Amino acid sequence: MNSKVTIKDLAEAAGVSVTTVSQILNGKGERFSKKTQEKVITLRDQLHYVPDFNARNLILRSSRTIGVLVPNIGNPFFSTFFRGIQKVCRQAHYLPIVFSASNDETSEKYYLGNLVERSVDGLIISSSSVTADTIDSILKPNHIPYLLFDRNQTHDDGDRLQVDDYQGGQLAAEHLIKLGHQRMVAVFPENLTNNLEKRLHGFTDELKKAGIHFNPKTDIVNAPLTKLGGYEHADEVLSKKATAVFCANDELAIGLYRGLHEHGIKIPEELSVMGYDNIDLAEYVTPKLTTIEQPILKLGETSAQLILKRINDLNMERQLVDVPVKLVERESTARPHSYN
Amino acid sequence: MNSKVTIKDLAEAAGVSVTTVSQILNGKGERFSKKTQEKVITLRDQLHYVPDFNARNLILRSSRTIGVLVPNIGNPFFSTFFRGIQKVCRQAHYLPIVFSASNDETSEKYYLGNLVERSVDGLIISSSSVTADTIDSILKPNHIPYLLFDRNQTHDDGDRLQVDDYQGGQLAAEHLIKLGHQRMVAVFPENLTNNLEKRLHGFTDELKKAGIHFNPKTDIVNAPLTKLGGYEHADEVLSKKATAVFCANDELAIGLYRGLHEHGIKIPEELSVMGYDNIDLAEYVTPKLTTIEQPILKLGETSAQLILKRINDLNMERQLVDVPVKLVERESTARPHSYN
Repeated sequence: MNSKVTIKDLAEAAGVSVTTVSQILNGKGERFSKKTQEKVITLRDQLHYVPDFNARNLILRSSRTIGVLVPNIGNPFFSTFFRGIQKVCRQAHYLPIVFSASNDETSEKYYLGNLVERSVDGLIISSSSVTADTIDSILKPNHIPYLLFDRNQTHDDGDRLQVDDYQGGQLAAEHLIKLGHQRMVAVFPENLTNNLEKRLHGFTDELKKAGIHFNPKTDIVNAPLTKLGGYEHADEVLSKKATAVFCANDELAIGLYRGLHEHGIKIPEELSVMGYDNIDLAEYVTPKLTTIEQPILKLGETSAQLILKRINDLNMERQLVDVPVKLVERESTARPHSYN
Repeated sequence: MNSKVTIKDLAEAAGVSVTTVSQILNGKGERFSKKTQEKVITLRDQLHYVPDFNARNLILRSSRTIGVLVPNIGNPFFSTFFRGIQKVCRQAHYLPIVFSASNDETSEKYYLGNLVERSVDGLIISSSSVTADTIDSILKPNHIPYLLFDRNQTHDDGDRLQVDDYQGGQLAAEHLIKLGHQRMVAVFPENLTNNLEKRLHGFTDELKKAGIHFNPKTDIVNAPLTKLGGYEHADEVLSKKATAVFCANDELAIGLYRGLHEHGIKIPEELSVMGYDNIDLAEYVTPKLTTIEQPILKLGETSAQLILKRINDLNMERQLVDVPVKLVERESTARPHSYN
C-alpha cells in the first residue's frame, strides 16, 4: 500500500536500465563509466531510494531476521536479555524481532507460525510453554534453526546455552543455611519448566544435605513469576511461619516485599527474602535484594552469537555453552529473628 | 538458507500444478474437484507447509508489519505500551516489531531504514531523538504512514495521539501546593522533548499562579529518565533544600528513592517525591509512589488503532485523539516537614 521510490523510478531518472542501477547499487558497477556510477548514487540519495528488501529476499532466501520469543518483555530480565541480542544482531546486520507471548501456548504458536511464514532465519525461544509438539510440528519440518533458552530441555538435541540453575539453587540454600535459618519456604510457579525444576532441586538437595527439614508438599507456595504473583501470595508465605523465603525470581520477590510491607513485616529482621536473576531493580528496592545473579546481558549476546553461527552452518557440531551464576549478597537476608 | 517445505513440494506430492495448489490454498479452489481440494489441504497439514510470506508479499505490496520505535523497552512504560500495540495488531493480523534505540539518533536511523527496506506498512515512533530531518528524509519520500507518540510535535501535521502533558504538570504542582509546599525542585532531562517541555511548563505555570518562587535556572536538576539517572542526582537534589521534588517520570523517581535512602532521608517525612506515568512498579516501591497516571496500555492500543486506520486509508482526514491524565495519590507525598 506504500508508494515507495522504486528501482524503476531511479532507473528512469538516471536514464539507464534497471539492471544497470541494480548492479551499481550492489557494488558490481565496475563495468559502467564513473559518470554513470556517480549519477546513480547521487540520484539514489536525492530520491531517498531504499532497496526493497522483499524482492532481494527472494533471491537470498533469507530475511536476515532472528525471531525472539519471551514470556514477558515487561520483566526487566527479558528486556535486558533482548538488549544483548539486539546488540549482537546489529553488528551482524540481522534484525531481531521480539514477541511477548505471556506464557500462552496459543499466542506462541501464532507468533512462531507467523515468523516461519516470513522466512525467519533463526529463533531464540525463551518460554515456559512452547511444547515439544510445537517445535516438532512447526520448526523441525521447516528446518528453522532454533535455540532454547531458560529451559534446559534435556530431551532436546539442539544447541544449548546452559545456565547452572542447580548450582544457583544450591548457592541460595547455602547462604541461608550459613546465616542460621532452619525453617525455610520456597515460592515457585505451579508448572515448573526444566530450569526452574533444577533451581528448586539445587535448593532442596542442599537443605537435605544440611539435615534441614523441608517438605515439598507444604513448604512450597505456588505463585506466578510476577510482582503481582508475589504480592498476592504474601499471606500464604506468612502462614508458613518460616524465617527465610527463597523466591524463584526477583520480580516475584519484589511483589512479596509489598505484601510483607502491608502486613508490617520487617525485611530482613522478621523475614529474610532471597531473589533470583539480579535484575537492575534489585538494587533499587528497600532493602536491597539479596539474589543469585545470572549475567543477563551476556546471556542475550551469547544466545545471538550461537544462533548466528548455527544459521551460517547448519551442519556444524552441537554448540554447548555453560554459564555460571553467583551469589549477590545485599540487605534482604540476615540471621533469623529467633537468633537475635 | 532454510529448506522449507515449498509450494512446489506440495504440488508434486499432490500430483497437481503449483497454480492449482495456490488457488486451493487461497480459497479459490471451487473449480477443482472436492477430491483434489481435500488432497491438497490434507497434504498441507501432513507436510506442515507454511506459505512463504515474502513471495505473497510481492503481490500484496504489504508486509502486514507495524514498526515500533521506543527509546527503552526496559522501561516498564514502554513494555506496557508495546503490550497494547501487540494486542490490537494481533486482532488485525498485523505483526508489530519493536526496537529499542536508547535515544541514539544513529540507532534510530538504522532501524528506521531497515524497516523501510522491509516494506513496513506503518510506524509508531516514540522517541526523543528522531529528528524532523530523519522523518523528512526517510519516511516522507517513501510514503510510510507514521504516528509520533510521546512527543506532541507541534510542527508535524500527521495523525496525533495527544496526552495532556501540560495538565499533568499542573496536577502535580496543584497537589504539592495543596499540601503546603513552598520550596520545590524538578528533575528533568537536559534536552526536553516537546511533551516533557509541556509537562514542565504546566508545573511551573501553576507555581507562578500560586505566587511560589521557582527559578528554572537553579531549581531544575538535569538527569536522564532512568533509575540510574535519579540515583546519581540525589546529592544535587538534596543540595537544593527543597521540601518536594517533581520527577519527570517514575523510573527516575524510583532511582531517586535509592539515593535518598542511602542518605538516610525519609520519604515523605523529610522530602515529598512525585513521579509521572504510573508504571506498575509505582505501587511496589516503599513508600508507594504518588504520580500522574497516563493510561499506558490504552495508549498502546489507541496508537495501533490509529496507524491501522491510516494504513487502510492514506487519504482520510487527520486523526486527533486527546488522552487525559490524572493524579494518583499514594504515600510518597505529605505536608512539608517545616509544617509538622
